[in-house]
Amino acid sequence: QHAVQRQRSSVKLWESLCDSGKVLVYPVDGSHWVNMKVLIEELHSRGHSITVIRPSSSWYITEHSPLYTSITVPDEIDSLGDFIEEHLNKMIEIQRGKISTLAFLKVQMNFFSMLSKAHLIACNTVSNIIDDNELVKRLHGEQYDLVLTDPAITTGVVLAHYLKLPLVLNVRWIISGEGHFIIAPSPLSYIPAPGSGLSDQMSFFQRVKNSLFCAIVLFQNTFVVGPHYKALCDKYFDEDCDIVSFLQEADIWLMRLDFVFDFPRPTMPNVVYMGGFQCKPAKPLPEDLEAFVQSSGEYGFIIMSLGTLVDSLPADTADEIAAVFAKLPQKVIWRHLGPKPSTLGNNTLLVNWMPQNDLLGHSKIKAFVAHGGTNGVQEAIYHGVPVLGIPLFFDQFDNLMRIQAKGAAKILELSQLDGQTFEQMLLEVLNDDSYRTNMQRLSSLHRDQPVKPLDSAVFWIEYVMRNKGAPHLRTKAYRMPWYSYHSVDVTLFLLSTAAVLTFTTVAFIRWVCCRACGKRKVKNE
Amino acid sequence: QHAVQRQRSSVKLWESLCDSGKVLVYPVDGSHWVNMKVLIEELHSRGHSITVIRPSSSWYITEHSPLYTSITVPDEIDSLGDFIEEHLNKMIEIQRGKISTLAFLKVQMNFFSMLSKAHLIACNTVSNIIDDNELVKRLHGEQYDLVLTDPAITTGVVLAHYLKLPLVLNVRWIISGEGHFIIAPSPLSYIPAPGSGLSDQMSFFQRVKNSLFCAIVLFQNTFVVGPHYKALCDKYFDEDCDIVSFLQEADIWLMRLDFVFDFPRPTMPNVVYMGGFQCKPAKPLPEDLEAFVQSSGEYGFIIMSLGTLVDSLPADTADEIAAVFAKLPQKVIWRHLGPKPSTLGNNTLLVNWMPQNDLLGHSKIKAFVAHGGTNGVQEAIYHGVPVLGIPLFFDQFDNLMRIQAKGAAKILELSQLDGQTFEQMLLEVLNDDSYRTNMQRLSSLHRDQPVKPLDSAVFWIEYVMRNKGAPHLRTKAYRMPWYSYHSVDVTLFLLSTAAVLTFTTVAFIRWVCCRACGKRKVKNE
Repeated sequence: QHAVQRQRSSVKLWESLCDSGKVLVYPVDGSHWVNMKVLIEELHSRGHSITVIRPSSSWYITEHSPLYTSITVPDEIDSLGDFIEEHLNKMIEIQRGKISTLAFLKVQMNFFSMLSKAHLIACNTVSNIIDDNELVKRLHGEQYDLVLTDPAITTGVVLAHYLKLPLVLNVRWIISGEGHFIIAPSPLSYIPAPGSGLSDQMSFFQRVKNSLFCAIVLFQNTFVVGPHYKALCDKYFDEDCDIVSFLQEADIWLMRLDFVFDFPRPTMPNVVYMGGFQCKPAKPLPEDLEAFVQSSGEYGFIIMSLGTLVDSLPADTADEIAAVFAKLPQKVIWRHLGPKPSTLGNNTLLVNWMPQNDLLGHSKIKAFVAHGGTNGVQEAIYHGVPVLGIPLFFDQFDNLMRIQAKGAAKILELSQLDGQTFEQMLLEVLNDDSYRTNMQRLSSLHRDQPVKPLDSAVFWIEYVMRNKGAPHLRTKAYRMPWYSYHSVDVTLFLLSTAAVLTFTTVAFIRWVCCRACGKRKVKNE
Repeated sequence: QHAVQRQRSSVKLWESLCDSGKVLVYPVDGSHWVNMKVLIEELHSRGHSITVIRPSSSWYITEHSPLYTSITVPDEIDSLGDFIEEHLNKMIEIQRGKISTLAFLKVQMNFFSMLSKAHLIACNTVSNIIDDNELVKRLHGEQYDLVLTDPAITTGVVLAHYLKLPLVLNVRWIISGEGHFIIAPSPLSYIPAPGSGLSDQMSFFQRVKNSLFCAIVLFQNTFVVGPHYKALCDKYFDEDCDIVSFLQEADIWLMRLDFVFDFPRPTMPNVVYMGGFQCKPAKPLPEDLEAFVQSSGEYGFIIMSLGTLVDSLPADTADEIAAVFAKLPQKVIWRHLGPKPSTLGNNTLLVNWMPQNDLLGHSKIKAFVAHGGTNGVQEAIYHGVPVLGIPLFFDQFDNLMRIQAKGAAKILELSQLDGQTFEQMLLEVLNDDSYRTNMQRLSSLHRDQPVKPLDSAVFWIEYVMRNKGAPHLRTKAYRMPWYSYHSVDVTLFLLSTAAVLTFTTVAFIRWVCCRACGKRKVKNE
């Protein structure tokens, strides 16, 4: 009670000081925007004024909103859509063992070229902004307190550097590997590279694999996307800069993870963990859905969704899954947009969209069949619902593996996915109490924090506003040359000093001995 | 407001669950006890019951207290007092240039032998506890939720391991160097070794010095105190353990520092920064002191204290300082227990003890002449009072150097201490506004935290209680052999694979070429 009283007074003090905060948001489109919007809503509700820079081709980021003013900047028409879909289909085929390793390499090359293209488009957009004198004058004139951006695409960071504004990052992944690989020491012996599917406890060959994955990340950073940012540097800035040096200037990194979800690892003082910041208590369901759910009686219900990127599985697989669902005593709500499976049971409701958070928070829910996107996994943790995961691509396997390692989920890889394994694994997650117990322990650990993640995120954004940055929380060590940072020069110096000392001592002793011998010889003669 | 409401409900929930927390405190005596007592008071006020293990010879840790139950254990009579005093005098003489470098080495050796003796006594005490079947039975029977200990002496950690209880550390220094050297990667290129007097931005030769200081710490750990703990391991535990492995089992490290005070550095998820947790608003002064202070008018007043270990400076130095004070328009309150300086002015009040926190928080204070102990420095930061530091020993130089680096203090080394330099530096701190401005910026940064340091400390202690430890916040990577932890094995493997591949390829090409040549030869023939 005492503590709360004291805290309240400090929060109040600050709230009265911070009415006039002005935030320039440079978001990444698509699912990243969903997360950014949560922060924008909260900042708006606390009285800050927000300006969002949106590309003219954006569908997700609306031009008009009660939450923010938007600045629309021209971008090249997004021709990546088809490419992404093709890439995803190829990935599914690889996972299901339908195409060879050589084809995989080709897909990887295609992926690099897609990445490169996406970043080139983004770099051109930021170039367009900087070249627009009128717009730059307006941005300077607005006197923003900070730039808030998602560094999955690093151009917001470039703009913040150009405008000389404090910088807050809203991060899940950055192109140069997970954010931590850039800001905190990340020993490869226990920090798994993103996308490697490895845990923090690795065998020898897993550690070799981890090193190779890091090499890919480094390659990607140096040769695939790096050159575009280097070009921006050369064009607009006098100093020596690149994608990494831009990122290292960030005042605060708001990481969309926490250590209930992720493995423990070294971190820096300017990193704030806000995993699950988007989670909230369930709202009541629409009447028809509530009726359906209630009809499940004591057996409860299951939900299945493979995320917004994949509308449906191949028809044969969908049929097998539907047949398994039909056998269950539970009710099932399944987000499935493809043709209706022929084996669909009466207990299964197909939907185009579902209020996922409200269903996960319902008292009758028994399990969540999910693809393992960060949002879904965090919501499952928040509500304590065990997961049967079918990871498709990106970070999904990594996400699911983290909760599987804690005994709260089971992973079914696409290559194993048929009726039999699906049934067997689903029954295990449903009937073995340990999954539920473990997930509920994760849930209670996740909720056991001195400050709620969203409050913490907003505190640190406002912190940067009122203190005009947070340079004392970031190290300047990254500006050292690599051989100094890793003490290679000191080690060589100490070794050579030791060598010289040893050599001199030995030489001196030999000289003394020789002199003594010589004298003796002379004497003897 | 919203945020506070939500927070309050979670705190309330917990408070109702946690009435019955039982904490076993294994403190370190002397000034460390002062800090531990702050935590004990707060835990007691929140309804936890506390048991303190105290050595029979302790003066500071009273047997009877309304805050805790005590268990008195026999210890060897503390014969270290004289030794410490002698060591301190020697250190002062060295600082003032009165004895040579060779003498310094002798002092260092003496210091090692004192350290070794202190730890041996502590190890014997914990042996006495473990050998006392009655006592062990009682300790087991009490079913404590956790052990809270200061690892400056590591025996509390050993007892926690023996009793198999969760462990929370209240840390400023540990014998194996600063706590971070054990739990988080600490690159020697920017993490200054404790006692080195270096900052986070070092020249080449400073980095060499830093490496040598770390070597001393390592030596101390391995050969001076380590063997005593190794002996405890061999006697009481079957597994392979040592002082470092004990420490790595801690659930939470409550560090008595923060990143307003310290340089930014890598840290781990189970490290909580509670620097300044002991600071509190000033209480009104006793009437006579208030009258003295008010009589200073617009000039304000200065306080001077060199901590509890040093009662007085040498008479000649005290005279010079008093003469400088006498010239000032400010009033001075000086903790000085030696003979009254002959040059003492009317504006200077000599005291045996002062309410330091209340004076530092007084609106008329202008400067603090301090020895740089952690508590004093933290209080100066909390109240925003610029410091003229005269470091004597231990961490004092390091502490002062951290605030000097931020422009909020000036360091006057004992070797330079005479009337002239003292006057010059004191006037600079008093008259140059930047010291006050910088210190007040540190103060406002220090107070700008989502949770007050003491609340945060207690939150994490209670967190360990209700979750029965916090293993998910600490890494198991330390159990790897060093060559795996540092990826030496993986690097060698990758290098030799690359070598074999290169060799094979070259050999194959040569073979193909030779065959081709051979065939051509045959053809030609």
